[in-house]
Amino acid sequence: PRADGGKPRAHLTVIKQPPTHHLKDQLQAMHWEHELGLAFTKNRMNYTNKFLVVPESGDYFIYTQISFRGTSSECGNIDQRKQQNKPDSIIVVITKVTDRYPEPSQLLMGTKSVCEISSTWFQPLYLGAMFSLQEGDKLMVNVSDLSLVDYTREDKTFFGAFLL
Amino acid sequence: PRADGGKPRAHLTVIKQPPTHHLKDQLQAMHWEHELGLAFTKNRMNYTNKFLVVPESGDYFIYTQISFRGTSSECGNIDQRKQQNKPDSIIVVITKVTDRYPEPSQLLMGTKSVCEISSTWFQPLYLGAMFSLQEGDKLMVNVSDLSLVDYTREDKTFFGAFLL
Amino acid sequence: PRADGGKPRAHLTVIKQPPTHHLKDQLQAMHWEHELGLAFTKNRMNYTNKFLVVPESGDYFIYTQISFRGTSSECGNIDQRKQQNKPDSIIVVITKVTDRYPEPSQLLMGTKSVCEISSTWFQPLYLGAMFSLQEGDKLMVNVSDLSLVDYTREDKTFFGAFLL
Ligand SMILES: [Mg+2]
Repeated sequence: PRADGGKPRAHLTVIKQPPTHHLKDQLQAMHWEHELGLAFTKNRMNYTNKFLVVPESGDYFIYTQISFRGTSSECGNIDQRKQQNKPDSIIVVITKVTDRYPEPSQLLMGTKSVCEISSTWFQPLYLGAMFSLQEGDKLMVNVSDLSLVDYTREDKTFFGAFLL
Repeated sequence: PRADGGKPRAHLTVIKQPPTHHLKDQLQAMHWEHELGLAFTKNRMNYTNKFLVVPESGDYFIYTQISFRGTSSECGNIDQRKQQNKPDSIIVVITKVTDRYPEPSQLLMGTKSVCEISSTWFQPLYLGAMFSLQEGDKLMVNVSDLSLVDYTREDKTFFGAFLL
Repeated sequence: PRADGGKPRAHLTVIKQPPTHHLKDQLQAMHWEHELGLAFTKNRMNYTNKFLVVPESGDYFIYTQISFRGTSSECGNIDQRKQQNKPDSIIVVITKVTDRYPEPSQLLMGTKSVCEISSTWFQPLYLGAMFSLQEGDKLMVNVSDLSLVDYTREDKTFFGAFLL
């Protein structure tokens, strides 16, 4: 067997997200930094256009943390919250796209209701697990609302994968 | 050394839990899917009757995410909450059982108070860490209340382990 | 390549923290158990004076969970909360110190606002990700307030790292 140092690995960190049109109830894909600061890709694991591309088949550990922040008020009053465009939940999904199937598949999902009585809130969602991936599989992170993601610090919002 | 692809590994996903009698303040063990969809076991890591059975000694990374959902109201009023059988906390434990000791031991625990002013809430608890295990050790996931576990999606509630 | 069993690895567990003077808005470093119970260090990964010391360069997976508990009241009333010395957030940071740079760098950060209507709350913050480290790098865990950390159970508050 080869040395473990030659295995495909990537750790991506948050950047300011380009503005996009947000369709209600539709997940949004995140962009990532892949080479500056703490971020890196190595050994043929490549980042391109929001996707990590898996260079060889095998079992990978995949993880992400998204730090969210927002405002909420009158959580007991759902009608009022909807009028004010306050979120009632935050969602993170790690999605796999492959040429072998027409539909993307969701590998990992975290969802949390958000209803705090303070006027501002912030919290992370963390996900991590092992998956059997095929050469060419592509991985992305989707969130419920890009405008709630804290993009100010590379240590708070990140996405990574490595071959076991 | 052997190729890493031959190491014991498992990723288990949630299924609908068989009905059980729930004794108050007693943890309940989860059942898991071990071969369909995203779930798999390989290289002599076996799943049997709620347990992952470790086939060889070594250091393992073990992880789980349990997605909970429930209803709560009048959190400030503890008496009322207890009358209504609403939970005031959620608990996840990864437990090790071994023939070498009579008592199970708890490797990982996550506990969170639940007190939201909205009528329904949902949130995940995630755990993951490395442990030195012996051949024959058995691992299970216990929760405070099976009836609060979201069993609808394989990507939201899962349990895995792999030899490092 | 060497056998994986010879790689640097450590899993540290919580102990009662020595009393320290807490400067407001300043992070505090945690002490850890490194050899009793579930805790261990092996293969030249050493624990000394709050730091894990990395014995060889490479990519490491680093993780921590801190379980916090506290009391809060009148969250909507920020003035009152500050008077009572109740926290309005919890913070966990994994920090890297190296001889090559004068300033510590933050690898991982989790922050969460705390504002619950119950009189007591408890919850964990979990972090984990992969980093490229150099021989001699030192890792520690910092928290916003040591007095809020649950130090009663080794399975609830922990810190680990292993060479991939
Ligand atoms: Mg190896």
